[in-house]
Amino acid sequence: MPDFEVKTPEGDTSERQVCTTCGYIAYENPKIVVGTVVVDDGRVLLCRRAIEPRSGFWTLPAGYLELQETTAEGAKREAFEEAGADIALDGILAVYNISRIGQVQIIYRGTMQTPGLSAGIESLEVGFFRWEDIPWDRIAFPSVHWALQAWREIGTQPLGAPFTNPPQDLRGTKRLDAATVAL
Amino acid sequence: MPDFEVKTPEGDTSERQVCTTCGYIAYENPKIVVGTVVVDDGRVLLCRRAIEPRSGFWTLPAGYLELQETTAEGAKREAFEEAGADIALDGILAVYNISRIGQVQIIYRGTMQTPGLSAGIESLEVGFFRWEDIPWDRIAFPSVHWALQAWREIGTQPLGAPFTNPPQDLRGTKRLDAATVAL
Repeated sequence: MPDFEVKTPEGDTSERQVCTTCGYIAYENPKIVVGTVVVDDGRVLLCRRAIEPRSGFWTLPAGYLELQETTAEGAKREAFEEAGADIALDGILAVYNISRIGQVQIIYRGTMQTPGLSAGIESLEVGFFRWEDIPWDRIAFPSVHWALQAWREIGTQPLGAPFTNPPQDLRGTKRLDAATVAL
Repeated sequence: MPDFEVKTPEGDTSERQVCTTCGYIAYENPKIVVGTVVVDDGRVLLCRRAIEPRSGFWTLPAGYLELQETTAEGAKREAFEEAGADIALDGILAVYNISRIGQVQIIYRGTMQTPGLSAGIESLEVGFFRWEDIPWDRIAFPSVHWALQAWREIGTQPLGAPFTNPPQDLRGTKRLDAATVAL
């Protein structure tokens, strides 16, 4: 098992995890999550999670972007893997920062390209929900709420500047204070 | 020194770099670059790179997002580190995929919050350029061209849906073919 210590490598400005056995520097950068609000006949695609965290709760099809794929390809791959959905993307609906856990989420708006859904191995069930039927008390993550609200606001209108975190959730945890963040 | 072999860890679906000494799995995900088209009196801020790659060529203030900062905080930090610029951000101008090198670039449009520039240690010189004075034959990266063109197109108008790669540059290198990418 690797054994890491926290230190600042020579020439670096931040502390990093460095393996005491082999000297490997684990540069941990934020990870990119790509997902989609998939809309069909006024309903939105949700997946009930079969895995932790938040197993049993509902989420958008989304996951970590892999190397050598574009954000659009990743969003389409996740919809296919988690919901068996063959989707087309309109464009970017929202960009969310979850800096507490080192994530940047890029959320597309999309539509079904071919009919048909089937729950992938990371989903217990999948389905389309009208706004009033969304299981609001069983949503997995705050950013799913935000993205659903963004969809509610924009509907089928042309996409504009991306939605972002609600103001009270915008701040990172390490640098700067709220007053210096002018987004 | 760490010594990595390429193999698929148990329960994973992709090959990863695994250290033969300590078993550490180096999950390599795409990295996020944050940067800004900083506009002042119709001119754009460029920095001449003091470091490789492309030392001596001109770029936008931009760099890797660090953990525990938001994309907006990272963009402001980079402008300060590379050009001594205290900037405010309007919002996201463009999202570029450079999947060949595992980057997603989130480029803001911004303005100066306090006057004054000074070249940071990664910059040879910094300055504002009118469109016709931009050193087009000395631009560091294709995405700098794309972002400058995006700024040229939108100017000071309200930001819309983010600009993205030109169509011929959109495709990832691993998955799907162009016909399935509907962005």
